[in-house]
Amino acid sequence: MGNPDPRHDILFTPIQLGPKTAPNRFYQTPHATGLGESAAAGAALRRTKAEGGWGVVNTEAVKISYESDMSGFRVMSWLLDESDASNWRRTCEEVHEHGSLIGIELLITASKSSGFGAREPAGRVSAIQNPGDFNAGYYEMDLDDIARAQQRYVDAALLARDAGFDIINIYGAEGAGLPLEFLSPWYNRRSDGYGGSLRNRARFWLEVLEKVGDAVGSDLSITARFNPCQGNGRTPAVDLDPEGLQFIEMADDLVDFWDIQVGRPGPLAASSSPAARFGVENYASAWVRQVKSLTDKPVVAPGWFTSADAMASVISSGQQDLIGAARPSIADPFLPAKIRSGEFESIRECIGCNVCVSRYDHGGRIVCTQNATLGEEYRRGWHPERFTKSALSEKPVLIVGAGPAGLELASVLARRGHEAVHVVDAAPMVGGHYRWVSKLPGLGAWVRIIDYREQVLQQHKAVEVITDTRLTVPEILDYGAAVVVTATGSQWSSNGLNGWSRQAIPGADAIASSWQFTPEQIMAGDPVDADKVLIYDCDGYYMAPSLAEKLLLEGKHVTVVTPYTELGRWLAHTGERELINRIQAAGAMIVTGTQVARVDGGQVSLVGGGLAAEPTTVRVDAVVWVTQRVSDDILYRGLVAYPALLQSHDVERVLHVGDARAPRMHLADTIFDAHRLGREIDSATPDVAAPYIREHRVLGWKDADYDAILRANPTPIQ
Amino acid sequence: MGNPDPRHDILFTPIQLGPKTAPNRFYQTPHATGLGESAAAGAALRRTKAEGGWGVVNTEAVKISYESDMSGFRVMSWLLDESDASNWRRTCEEVHEHGSLIGIELLITASKSSGFGAREPAGRVSAIQNPGDFNAGYYEMDLDDIARAQQRYVDAALLARDAGFDIINIYGAEGAGLPLEFLSPWYNRRSDGYGGSLRNRARFWLEVLEKVGDAVGSDLSITARFNPCQGNGRTPAVDLDPEGLQFIEMADDLVDFWDIQVGRPGPLAASSSPAARFGVENYASAWVRQVKSLTDKPVVAPGWFTSADAMASVISSGQQDLIGAARPSIADPFLPAKIRSGEFESIRECIGCNVCVSRYDHGGRIVCTQNATLGEEYRRGWHPERFTKSALSEKPVLIVGAGPAGLELASVLARRGHEAVHVVDAAPMVGGHYRWVSKLPGLGAWVRIIDYREQVLQQHKAVEVITDTRLTVPEILDYGAAVVVTATGSQWSSNGLNGWSRQAIPGADAIASSWQFTPEQIMAGDPVDADKVLIYDCDGYYMAPSLAEKLLLEGKHVTVVTPYTELGRWLAHTGERELINRIQAAGAMIVTGTQVARVDGGQVSLVGGGLAAEPTTVRVDAVVWVTQRVSDDILYRGLVAYPALLQSHDVERVLHVGDARAPRMHLADTIFDAHRLGREIDSATPDVAAPYIREHRVLGWKDADYDAILRANPTPIQ
Repeated sequence: MGNPDPRHDILFTPIQLGPKTAPNRFYQTPHATGLGESAAAGAALRRTKAEGGWGVVNTEAVKISYESDMSGFRVMSWLLDESDASNWRRTCEEVHEHGSLIGIELLITASKSSGFGAREPAGRVSAIQNPGDFNAGYYEMDLDDIARAQQRYVDAALLARDAGFDIINIYGAEGAGLPLEFLSPWYNRRSDGYGGSLRNRARFWLEVLEKVGDAVGSDLSITARFNPCQGNGRTPAVDLDPEGLQFIEMADDLVDFWDIQVGRPGPLAASSSPAARFGVENYASAWVRQVKSLTDKPVVAPGWFTSADAMASVISSGQQDLIGAARPSIADPFLPAKIRSGEFESIRECIGCNVCVSRYDHGGRIVCTQNATLGEEYRRGWHPERFTKSALSEKPVLIVGAGPAGLELASVLARRGHEAVHVVDAAPMVGGHYRWVSKLPGLGAWVRIIDYREQVLQQHKAVEVITDTRLTVPEILDYGAAVVVTATGSQWSSNGLNGWSRQAIPGADAIASSWQFTPEQIMAGDPVDADKVLIYDCDGYYMAPSLAEKLLLEGKHVTVVTPYTELGRWLAHTGERELINRIQAAGAMIVTGTQVARVDGGQVSLVGGGLAAEPTTVRVDAVVWVTQRVSDDILYRGLVAYPALLQSHDVERVLHVGDARAPRMHLADTIFDAHRLGREIDSATPDVAAPYIREHRVLGWKDADYDAILRANPTPIQ
Repeated sequence: MGNPDPRHDILFTPIQLGPKTAPNRFYQTPHATGLGESAAAGAALRRTKAEGGWGVVNTEAVKISYESDMSGFRVMSWLLDESDASNWRRTCEEVHEHGSLIGIELLITASKSSGFGAREPAGRVSAIQNPGDFNAGYYEMDLDDIARAQQRYVDAALLARDAGFDIINIYGAEGAGLPLEFLSPWYNRRSDGYGGSLRNRARFWLEVLEKVGDAVGSDLSITARFNPCQGNGRTPAVDLDPEGLQFIEMADDLVDFWDIQVGRPGPLAASSSPAARFGVENYASAWVRQVKSLTDKPVVAPGWFTSADAMASVISSGQQDLIGAARPSIADPFLPAKIRSGEFESIRECIGCNVCVSRYDHGGRIVCTQNATLGEEYRRGWHPERFTKSALSEKPVLIVGAGPAGLELASVLARRGHEAVHVVDAAPMVGGHYRWVSKLPGLGAWVRIIDYREQVLQQHKAVEVITDTRLTVPEILDYGAAVVVTATGSQWSSNGLNGWSRQAIPGADAIASSWQFTPEQIMAGDPVDADKVLIYDCDGYYMAPSLAEKLLLEGKHVTVVTPYTELGRWLAHTGERELINRIQAAGAMIVTGTQVARVDGGQVSLVGGGLAAEPTTVRVDAVVWVTQRVSDDILYRGLVAYPALLQSHDVERVLHVGDARAPRMHLADTIFDAHRLGREIDSATPDVAAPYIREHRVLGWKDADYDAILRANPTPIQ
């Protein structure tokens, strides 16, 4: 443990936010969780942030009308009636127990509504389809509809006050929310008093702020979340200059403080959480200063802050008043506490991979690469900083492989009191594949995955990390370990194995051939001596476009062929779609909807897509296979094949973990697997995850009572 | 009411299904509901089927392992432990109350798993990526994994028996389910005893059937859902001939009866629920006969059966033993009861639009165009055949517009005891737009929407339908109605208004121009006198491709331009994607990712997509605007503008409904809106939907007890 640094004291000074006082400058901005109606899980997640020292904790966006129905998109919660307020009360109580303030972000989804659950059409500022939306209908709100929607904000604020919230946040950011739809000239095509001039377009939001302020402003702090950015009228965003700044001036008297996200200009305009490749710490500095200069109200702004020095500096310099943080608080809920106690080496810094938000379109929960406990606080009872003593703590453990999974497992076992854990790796350095993955363009911050775990292990004498040592099955048997876990990772297929042809590609062989490569070979070996390089991508995530970017930077001519209808499909979910534009601008040719049928010499046969039915042959100097990964399970299979040998060597348990068990698209899942195994290594069946609490309704148990509660909707609410 | 027809008696004879006896031949095959964890809603939906006379009712696919996790895809339920069994017990009890059998379809999702909820990788028959899947990882199952998965089927069957189920269905159909993955040579690339020969690939499924039979076979009926069809090894499907038939022979001793879906050959191979444009009643006849000839066990097969005569005929002829039905039972849960009592004119026949399945990818609930009460049995307390007396029954009601919404509203009001309901339409026939929509190629069955409602209204003397009469605002005021509802529908925009440019298209004017058309103009007017026709589609559903098909059949040259990355995107969700291939094969040129910037004379300027930055100009003879629809709200706005006039004319309520309120992509929502208004017309605020029961967890209420139940997972289950 280090020593508290007095330069950081400013971060721990209270600040007045209207009628409420935040105990410090750490403000967890509203962020989604994908927990849907798992109310206890949501409460536990927010409680953990408060316990970790965030002076203000916020909910995700909370839908306040039946029309605000997004069906499978479980990133938002509800506040419709007392049954919801009852659930939120738990969150408020748990956060207050740790002395923090709790805010709620109120939302009417309007254009983002599907109506597929409630079966209601949604009111919009204008009755215009949004590009590509499919839903249960929409209509242009008339003056009655507007008044009703504004009343919903008031009703919701009153419910929120009763539930125990301290802060009401009227949301209109990230392209969403009825207040933004009215403000944005892209959405708003009205010709009445709510359309046309900025003053007219601002009217809806200003009136909501005024009405909510009249209703609860003397009790609660009022803020608005707003993210002006350079949209040039071609996106829903409102330009910072001049209209964004003018709106802030108009609304300034109606808020107690500002929750400002200033997005990047350009195609990422709507994003205020740039992935590592697009952002640096305090990326929004210049824009935040512009806002701050206009208002005397406190300003919260995020900036991918993970360094205590940077945070202290932006407060001291007057750039902003509170440190807004979603991702840094996800990666480490105890970030403020660790700064306060000077435990800098224990901070899990966000790597900016944006996996946290990436699964919402698929109905998924929030996950974090760095923090495996996220979202598991309630259902599995995991605390990010507390661990129970392992029943096997006296048994020597051998972990084969010091990639992220091996390091994570060792660190969990160490914190569970294991007395002797050896982590042995064949490579000269720990980190496994992520040693070279973090050398891909723009992914430098990903090395924090390795650095953090190395730092943790250095604090634990029980763990010994041994590199440059490749173990064989007999050596493992003789090692003296009672528990053996292989964490040997996976490799990219060298023979083009892929899901489209469901087999290897004829002629593909990156091991024997001098002109064919796997990603590892590209990154680990000498520079590729070739001019025309074809990358075949069946993976759909960052690897192929990242390799393309690297090879383009080296001056190669690069063609990327993929059977997908677009390259790097998953990048749309992490906010990194811009990478594709970037490599195209740098000269990459992208061929979609197309498969590699075979290779022969430098000839590559392509089929499908816009090509003729007959294969088209192209000649290249090199091919890179980014098709799929294959677990390295040789050691594991060798060990479990002979139970008698294990017994005679006193090896009680053999397990495999991480990509060695199943290759994962997201490192978050690889690390989670290791963390889960560490938490449960002393269970009867550690290879099978223990059941967790599913917050589902259970019928047949006091149904009448339960139904009565569910039916307790006192008034029709839309 | 008609008279029962003795030819139909055979449909009401019992049949032995192993140890259980089905009371009749109406077998509601397993189908999804999208109700997720709304357990009481699921029970009420199935109960309604039993009440309506379905002798066998089935659940949707039920996931029996934590790995079987599909996150936001709420079409499947869980059976993991006693808490789930407790929920299913309600379904069993409610179905049994009506004398029907209840079956459960057990599923391990394998390749369909995302793992985004449970955070577990999924075991697959082979560790090969599936085209385009993104998930939390997968691994090839070893022999231990296989034994464990088989035990999951046994454990689940035991839980199901305890819950009260009569039938266990081991699912491997529609490209999904671990048994199918083992059987299918497309999925299965193993080289051990579970891969290679058909006998080896069948082993997993046969062993599951045997083990489940050993465990519960003397108590419960065992079946397997299997859909062999022509896949030619290029899809997950197993060919009917020879392997499908051979598998049926192999497994015949292990089942009490067969639940067979035989899909269509060709690209729709996996579909056993062809949309109207691809199927006719009893479409699978020839294939079902092949199956039936191999087995003495009873055979269930679906065939889009809605006619009593056809159903009786396929049973009498020995083609099959039970009428399998998902969609017909969705459109009319009381189909068997109505056949039995001879109420043929009251049957709501399925129109084959497949909207029911189309929203699952978006987390949506099941909906039905014909049956607005579907899925609302519990949460809104709606029964498809029973209605409460309206408090306004003595008030004269005027409905302006006799499209689907107007007709539906009138029929609900009639059944709620309204004494005088007039439906007035300007057109010579009722049906609104669906008069011409049902004349689009392949959509003939859609006229059932109109026919059914006309038949219902003919039974109700309280309703008078008046056509050929266009009412003005003064005429409506003087009509003598206390309640006025405008159901005037919507029109396709004549000026190209669309979500991409967010305004009208310069030069677009289908009213003034002789060479520009809306879809209505194409369908209602004289044949288009043009050779080269350009259709601009911003809609994304069936209208543009359907018009293209019609014009191609008339010998035109057709180009369809769309800003979407693919034409007819929603058709992928209704199983109608093949329509796009069909129009391409017929010569349509499809230009995606492209917008119409302006038109001038016969010149159309295109921008975006693969075109150069400068607009490309093409010359055509005609343009059809399929951009978006606009509500026809002139009468409504005219009425509500002057409240004093309404009062002086004793008009107490003015409402609008259906597309006149908000244009809907799906007619199901239009009709739902009218049904909802009819059910709630006597509420204090009929324009706002009354709250419904949300089956969400409510915290703060006996939490400790509730948590204890949720935690009651006796054993780790994977």
